[in-house]
Amino acid sequence: MNKIEHIGIAVKDLKAANEIYTKLLGYEYYKTEGVPTEGVMTSFFKCGESKIELLEATDKNSPIAKFITKKGEGVHHIAFAVDDIISEIKRLKNEGFIVLNETPKKGADNKLVAFLHPKSSNGVLVELCQEINNVEKSLQ
Amino acid sequence: MNKIEHIGIAVKDLKAANEIYTKLLGYEYYKTEGVPTEGVMTSFFKCGESKIELLEATDKNSPIAKFITKKGEGVHHIAFAVDDIISEIKRLKNEGFIVLNETPKKGADNKLVAFLHPKSSNGVLVELCQEINNVEKSLQ
Repeated sequence: MNKIEHIGIAVKDLKAANEIYTKLLGYEYYKTEGVPTEGVMTSFFKCGESKIELLEATDKNSPIAKFITKKGEGVHHIAFAVDDIISEIKRLKNEGFIVLNETPKKGADNKLVAFLHPKSSNGVLVELCQEINNVEKSLQ
Repeated sequence: MNKIEHIGIAVKDLKAANEIYTKLLGYEYYKTEGVPTEGVMTSFFKCGESKIELLEATDKNSPIAKFITKKGEGVHHIAFAVDDIISEIKRLKNEGFIVLNETPKKGADNKLVAFLHPKSSNGVLVELCQEINNVEKSLQ
């Protein structure tokens, strides 16, 4: 794992949360992005080499809606940047982690992503993510 | 906020969690440290410019023990590095955040720290931290 790529925070109201995190961090988010396949709208704040991603459910069946119903607002996942998501999935599966996406899927922010079940990492939902541009480079 | 200084993860068994995070990250923690005033034993893993801090309660009345009883293992707090913790506490209080330590206290890893109540930051317990060496420099 190279760095913390982002921390995903589940919020009920993205507009209100954007105002709160703008005050907290002292600067504004740099983009918003919808991921219809996940039923979420997101916003991203830069923070050093990492990002803070706020996530609001746009669909009552989305994982974020279910998370908030069960646990309330708060940290939803930690995402780590990896160079080669396919080999990391293989490595972590062999190490005993429960990989939720054996084939990585397209996430927000131009990334290929895969999740590890919180049960195998002390209650933390872990996301692996690789820049799609890097995937294309590695296939050339 | 300059960067994510660390992510604090509450765990039941530090030794077992150290093994899991060594497998997850692909490398070992670089130190352990007890903070008797907080009733915790911690370990730190580097991750890019940030750190992962695992926290096990050493006292049943510690905040980490209470957190695990209530919510189970998982992300306990996000810590941001700040240059001047005193002025950040003042700024964030004025912005409406609930500051839990108006006078910063000594935390792990040679830091002065202060917490913001999760209620004012979408369920996220936020820690501000400043290197103690930087405090001494700013007083010179």
